[in-house]
Amino acid sequence: MSTITNVKTYDFRFPTSQTLSGSDAMNPDPDYSTAYVEVETDADDGIKGTGFVFTIGRGNDVVCRAIDSMSHVLLGRNVEELLDNMRLAWDLFVGDSQLRWLGPEKGVEHMAIGAVLSALWDIKAKRAGKPLWMLLAQMDPEELVATLDFRYLTDALRPEEAIEILQEGKRGKDERIEYLLKFGYPGYSTAAGWLGYADEKMVQIAKEETEQKGFKQIKLKVGRNVDDDLRRLALAREAIGPDVRLAVDANQVWDVPEAIEWINKFHDFDLAWVEEPTSPDDVIGHATIARAINPIPVATGEQMQNRIMFKQYLQANAFGVMQIDATRVAGPQEVVLEYLMAKKFNKIVCPHAGGVGLCEAVCHFAMFDYVAVSGTMDGRMIEYVDNQHEYFVHPIQISEGNYVAPTAPGNGTEMTVETAQKYLYRG
Amino acid sequence: MSTITNVKTYDFRFPTSQTLSGSDAMNPDPDYSTAYVEVETDADDGIKGTGFVFTIGRGNDVVCRAIDSMSHVLLGRNVEELLDNMRLAWDLFVGDSQLRWLGPEKGVEHMAIGAVLSALWDIKAKRAGKPLWMLLAQMDPEELVATLDFRYLTDALRPEEAIEILQEGKRGKDERIEYLLKFGYPGYSTAAGWLGYADEKMVQIAKEETEQKGFKQIKLKVGRNVDDDLRRLALAREAIGPDVRLAVDANQVWDVPEAIEWINKFHDFDLAWVEEPTSPDDVIGHATIARAINPIPVATGEQMQNRIMFKQYLQANAFGVMQIDATRVAGPQEVVLEYLMAKKFNKIVCPHAGGVGLCEAVCHFAMFDYVAVSGTMDGRMIEYVDNQHEYFVHPIQISEGNYVAPTAPGNGTEMTVETAQKYLYRG
Repeated sequence: MSTITNVKTYDFRFPTSQTLSGSDAMNPDPDYSTAYVEVETDADDGIKGTGFVFTIGRGNDVVCRAIDSMSHVLLGRNVEELLDNMRLAWDLFVGDSQLRWLGPEKGVEHMAIGAVLSALWDIKAKRAGKPLWMLLAQMDPEELVATLDFRYLTDALRPEEAIEILQEGKRGKDERIEYLLKFGYPGYSTAAGWLGYADEKMVQIAKEETEQKGFKQIKLKVGRNVDDDLRRLALAREAIGPDVRLAVDANQVWDVPEAIEWINKFHDFDLAWVEEPTSPDDVIGHATIARAINPIPVATGEQMQNRIMFKQYLQANAFGVMQIDATRVAGPQEVVLEYLMAKKFNKIVCPHAGGVGLCEAVCHFAMFDYVAVSGTMDGRMIEYVDNQHEYFVHPIQISEGNYVAPTAPGNGTEMTVETAQKYLYRG
Repeated sequence: MSTITNVKTYDFRFPTSQTLSGSDAMNPDPDYSTAYVEVETDADDGIKGTGFVFTIGRGNDVVCRAIDSMSHVLLGRNVEELLDNMRLAWDLFVGDSQLRWLGPEKGVEHMAIGAVLSALWDIKAKRAGKPLWMLLAQMDPEELVATLDFRYLTDALRPEEAIEILQEGKRGKDERIEYLLKFGYPGYSTAAGWLGYADEKMVQIAKEETEQKGFKQIKLKVGRNVDDDLRRLALAREAIGPDVRLAVDANQVWDVPEAIEWINKFHDFDLAWVEEPTSPDDVIGHATIARAINPIPVATGEQMQNRIMFKQYLQANAFGVMQIDATRVAGPQEVVLEYLMAKKFNKIVCPHAGGVGLCEAVCHFAMFDYVAVSGTMDGRMIEYVDNQHEYFVHPIQISEGNYVAPTAPGNGTEMTVETAQKYLYRG
């Protein structure tokens, strides 16, 4: 038996705004940041559970404060009791009626809860000696589903349907694990497309990412000026040729009518998707846009607040590509629910990544999905940007444009805190 | 010319969980709390701008931290420049791209922004020597609309339509101001209905609130046990008679199918509305419920995160009664946008109140609406509970079940901080 002895947060902010890496139509000068948490126990194994919330700068201290403010719930608590009953852990935080008022289930508090629950799953995976994707994929369907909260979802997905999906996912599971360990999971690159980059730099990086690194899709930021967009799209398409997929991302700058008018000028570029045309809160708006710009698919999800929004996007067929973010929702349990709903509604998931630690974190869920839920990588890929990986104990590896499946035990989010010390924010 | 010199926050928590006042099916033991902010300037007038976020306990410190964390934007800034251009003030906070990541426009950060913007409007109203409702109602339509951000709304309401609504609202405005000052605005009482109250207590309070205090509507909490609900509804209806309106409130405890089944047992009680049947995020779910329980109207809004959600509820006709909360969205400007949309879609607004300071705050918007937007009180009323009013400089007054129109300059939220000192939370 062991006990949680310490919950420690770190406010790391990297000055990415200096290079305009990460710049887009909504976010001209992000400073990629992480509200990072470590959960320590008194067990002999020396295992530390880690999790984080990715932010782009200001307010990262508020997320740390939210985590600090809920740490009293964990301190002194029996570790095994929580790890054996992760639904209890979920209820302690997501079910806290006073904290609920501050959302419910959205924004700073929900993200902070996600970091804490991720850290607990990290301990669980490390104790099992498995990477998180494998831990999740090898859990018994009933056992995994018992950790999940179907509140507000039963009009779209019931527990018994989830079990059925996971039971079906058992067929061929071992072969898929083998395949994944051998070949990895497709990635795509956003490195070329930042809005702050000059045309030449964009074209050069687009070529490097596809010809040298082997990515089969790139993505450009759009939405500040339509003429610039058209020129950049033509240049990019010419640089990568017809066989590499090209997506665009507007980062929520448009209203619904404006989005439709703007995107309908993009039909010549054979786009893989248009990402975040408008506010992520606008289910009905996205459904309207999706119908009006057909056949270009709508993608969104990196700022989707919770599973209830994803449910509605699926019910309303408001997007073609579902972009889960690992650190916006309440940890692995909510992400698993979202993948199960995607399977039920037969929707493609291409997770959001790129920000500090996101690549390391989200690949576990995509790989879990491939092995145990959808059983396929068709049309699926994980976003990739070569940013801040050096601060992680097990930085993600890319080979021929594919994410190499992590084999180190845990959820991939553990940082080498010492090397990042100089980016500790001190107000 | 004057300058902002200080932004000060207070974490007040009142131990309401001890009396079960405020208890409902989702919130068994709320501690009514306020993250209260004072904005000071170096002007000779001695005016302090105040605002707050109502919460129910844990996490109130996180809201204070969020306000503290954004105060650097205000300190040293020219006051008149902001007050003459409140759209600039909005953009400084709502438009901050780094803070946006933590929402966007929802949860702790958005609520904190609302408190800060409210405090600025409070200074503006106090300098004008008017209560906020009158300041807003007497602003020139173009001037008021220029303060508003229509981003993500133009598929439902465009600026020129808003101006048109306000222009139309000019007819009879002076008469309505006079009427309001004379008779006030209808309130309704939630005092009897807390789920923690015994039947006898509920019946007794229901009679007091209606027979003695003159409220024309009461509201009961429901959703924990259907047999209890039916018994309490019968008792309440008997106590108040057929002419007083009776509403129920489930505080989000149901899933969509469960809500429909449960509410359809309530058809005998001539209900004014069913409030918060499920998650406020679920536009589609509420639309489904609204159709299935017709003619009982659905009401929701107290936990609606922003104007984009209200827009969709209106577009999807997902509720019959819109319940704006004054301290969940980004201050007076967002509330005004919501009232303008309600007018456009011809929907009744009955604002959420009851929590610390909410009665003092929301009545200004309902009265602004009566005077300058909808021009009517038909079917409209403001929630009322007799809680913590004694901590306010100008506590709201009720006369014959009506809210007396405030005449003191400002937004009504200024507290007598000294008298609340003993409820300052110290961790």
